[in-house]
Amino acid sequence: MTAPLRVALLGCGTVGGAVLRLVGEQAADLAARVGRPVEVAGVAVRRPDRHPEVPAELLTTDALGLVTRDDVDLVVEVIGGIEPARSLIQAAIEAGKSVVSANKALLAEDGVALHAAAAKAGVDLYYEASVAGAIPLLRPLRESLAGDQIRRVVGIVNGTTNYILSRMAETGAGFSEALAEATELGYAEADPTADVDGFDAAAKAAILASLAFHSAVTASDVHREGISAVTATDVARAAEIGCTVKLLAICERVGGPDGESVAVRVHPAMIPTGHPLAAVGGAFNAVFVEAEAAGQLMFYGQGAGGEPTASAVLGDLVAVARNRVAGAAGAGPTAYAELPTRPIAETPTRYHVSLDVADVPGVLATVATEFARHEVSIATVRQDGHGDAATLVIVTHSAPDAALSATIAALREMPAVRGVTSVLRVEGLS
Amino acid sequence: MTAPLRVALLGCGTVGGAVLRLVGEQAADLAARVGRPVEVAGVAVRRPDRHPEVPAELLTTDALGLVTRDDVDLVVEVIGGIEPARSLIQAAIEAGKSVVSANKALLAEDGVALHAAAAKAGVDLYYEASVAGAIPLLRPLRESLAGDQIRRVVGIVNGTTNYILSRMAETGAGFSEALAEATELGYAEADPTADVDGFDAAAKAAILASLAFHSAVTASDVHREGISAVTATDVARAAEIGCTVKLLAICERVGGPDGESVAVRVHPAMIPTGHPLAAVGGAFNAVFVEAEAAGQLMFYGQGAGGEPTASAVLGDLVAVARNRVAGAAGAGPTAYAELPTRPIAETPTRYHVSLDVADVPGVLATVATEFARHEVSIATVRQDGHGDAATLVIVTHSAPDAALSATIAALREMPAVRGVTSVLRVEGLS
Repeated sequence: MTAPLRVALLGCGTVGGAVLRLVGEQAADLAARVGRPVEVAGVAVRRPDRHPEVPAELLTTDALGLVTRDDVDLVVEVIGGIEPARSLIQAAIEAGKSVVSANKALLAEDGVALHAAAAKAGVDLYYEASVAGAIPLLRPLRESLAGDQIRRVVGIVNGTTNYILSRMAETGAGFSEALAEATELGYAEADPTADVDGFDAAAKAAILASLAFHSAVTASDVHREGISAVTATDVARAAEIGCTVKLLAICERVGGPDGESVAVRVHPAMIPTGHPLAAVGGAFNAVFVEAEAAGQLMFYGQGAGGEPTASAVLGDLVAVARNRVAGAAGAGPTAYAELPTRPIAETPTRYHVSLDVADVPGVLATVATEFARHEVSIATVRQDGHGDAATLVIVTHSAPDAALSATIAALREMPAVRGVTSVLRVEGLS
Repeated sequence: MTAPLRVALLGCGTVGGAVLRLVGEQAADLAARVGRPVEVAGVAVRRPDRHPEVPAELLTTDALGLVTRDDVDLVVEVIGGIEPARSLIQAAIEAGKSVVSANKALLAEDGVALHAAAAKAGVDLYYEASVAGAIPLLRPLRESLAGDQIRRVVGIVNGTTNYILSRMAETGAGFSEALAEATELGYAEADPTADVDGFDAAAKAAILASLAFHSAVTASDVHREGISAVTATDVARAAEIGCTVKLLAICERVGGPDGESVAVRVHPAMIPTGHPLAAVGGAFNAVFVEAEAAGQLMFYGQGAGGEPTASAVLGDLVAVARNRVAGAAGAGPTAYAELPTRPIAETPTRYHVSLDVADVPGVLATVATEFARHEVSIATVRQDGHGDAATLVIVTHSAPDAALSATIAALREMPAVRGVTSVLRVEGLS
């Protein structure tokens, strides 16, 4: 054992506190795994008086000074958000420190530039904790499947929305009611926008797609729809066709006349209750991966929380520390494929549509003609009459999303259609 | 791009053939990921005439000559079995080649010596494909969870026995009948010993335990029971208590008066149908991991087959090739913890016992006294009377396995007990 590797910890909230505790508790194990002791050199926080649990001599408000200190080897960033995290990570990299981050927003927005800086400086930038908490996912995508071709990644990567949708299915509640319950129980934040509008899931989808398809995908490339428009009717309609509603992050390699591209989207969708993702409840996350040779894989575990996220941070910390001891940087992501991203309009999807129509002869023919006019093929139709009205429940085959949404717009204008009561995409049906 | 990295392929069966094909098909991707082209320098087989699909100039019967050739950088061993695989891998390592192997039997028997040789030579020895086929599992255990404390690994890691047990549950068939069906359909080999007697699962359990607990565990340290003694009655009794029978590989860190130790066992067990492992059917494998900070994780995917296994081999191949290009060896396993293995007799387990007893007053008291005499606590009892006989179905709390088996032996001698109709361990009940 030689001199310790010294870690600068940026941020000391739920995750940072757990990291600090685990580095202390598991000091002997970490030293054995790394080959040198690992110790915390300093903890940068905004308000030192709020952290009585941290030894006073470690606390500092000068984060920039800390990350560039000569006696710091590694930097762990668990502040979150774009600034000051970005500037601090940039400064750390330029000062020759390897960085472990749990910052999905930053990596999804600026991963390319940060990776370029890390490669130039010969240091590591790891961020397993940024997607799906404790679940080992980025390392398997980047390394274990490095000899395979990934076709598709589909995941439940946001626990708050998963909780809300589960409650809507269990109780028949609408979105607002279920959100209020989630907020009260602490499953949703006071400002739930990042979760319920899909920003959090979209950032994770961008990170997953970049690694899976060796292409630069940023959050702005991701088509994003949240769950606030999901109604109790949508959830009930899903149950009628043996499905459940989940907010999915979907990353696909899609072929086309102009060559391959990458389609990345986050939106609520109906999936069959027999699908492995359908059973994922509460705060758990799960990610399905389909690869050419490996076939179907699933990764499941806790997607959030201080301790699970800290576990992922520490796994990365051991890796970058070992690399530092070995005098080499580890494998970064590759972006050689440079696949373009495909807009949602051109991405093939399937719709479930529920219509209230007049119960007169020929209504189904009229509606079917409208689908055909947009070159959308119908997979199943169910018609239920009640009085002078009827309900048509239609599940389409796969078609470009623009054709599907144009069909819906046209249906809304048809005299025979009294109302479009539910429209939701469908995934995982054979 | 500079000179290619050259790979010696040992063995060209189902897995080797898939590796050869994928290295060719994905040449451009592999080169981009590694930083240098990767090409096959030679393929060692016993009978070159049986491999018309391989270019003749690559084929050789001189495996030892191939692995020590100066123009070979990396060796992929997919022969299986102990010899000649061991001698060839030893020779390759001594000649400075990094090695990727899919050989569970060899790694479980001789992993410590091979790793020591690899460390001494400064080369890599990777073997993701040896456990659970395509599922990224060893890398997550070794690297992603390197900062965490793994408590328990429980897996379904043998597809043949999983198929047989699934069919027994579905059809009510006995073991012999279900095995015959599996053999006919090609799910079981002509000599099914390695699978049905648990040797295959025990080798995988030894590899998992070594990595999870940073200790040297060999196949001979694993308590092993196969499924040939599982009866249709066992499967029916399991269903009655809401369970299903699975062959489990269980690796646990167990505390005790003499300090911590590692208990590793492979045996059939009843698990609740609601447990995530209960739904794993057919050729699929799944492994549950419980870690201190990460909580519960599950990994799921195809456990066998040429393409899935080749995917894992190629992931390792890219990793060792990148390390070669970087001029450094990757992280090997660590065995610093040196935890002793605990014999099954001292390992806490739970039993399900089904007894035919005389339906006379006091029988339950007599039986309960016998459990108490062995200090085994009973969790639940169900008594069904029919005529002058009754059935007692007992599920115990956790107790040392020796106390449980001694209780069963004593019950068999009791006059009031007409027969012990089913004995099976229970896992995953709360």
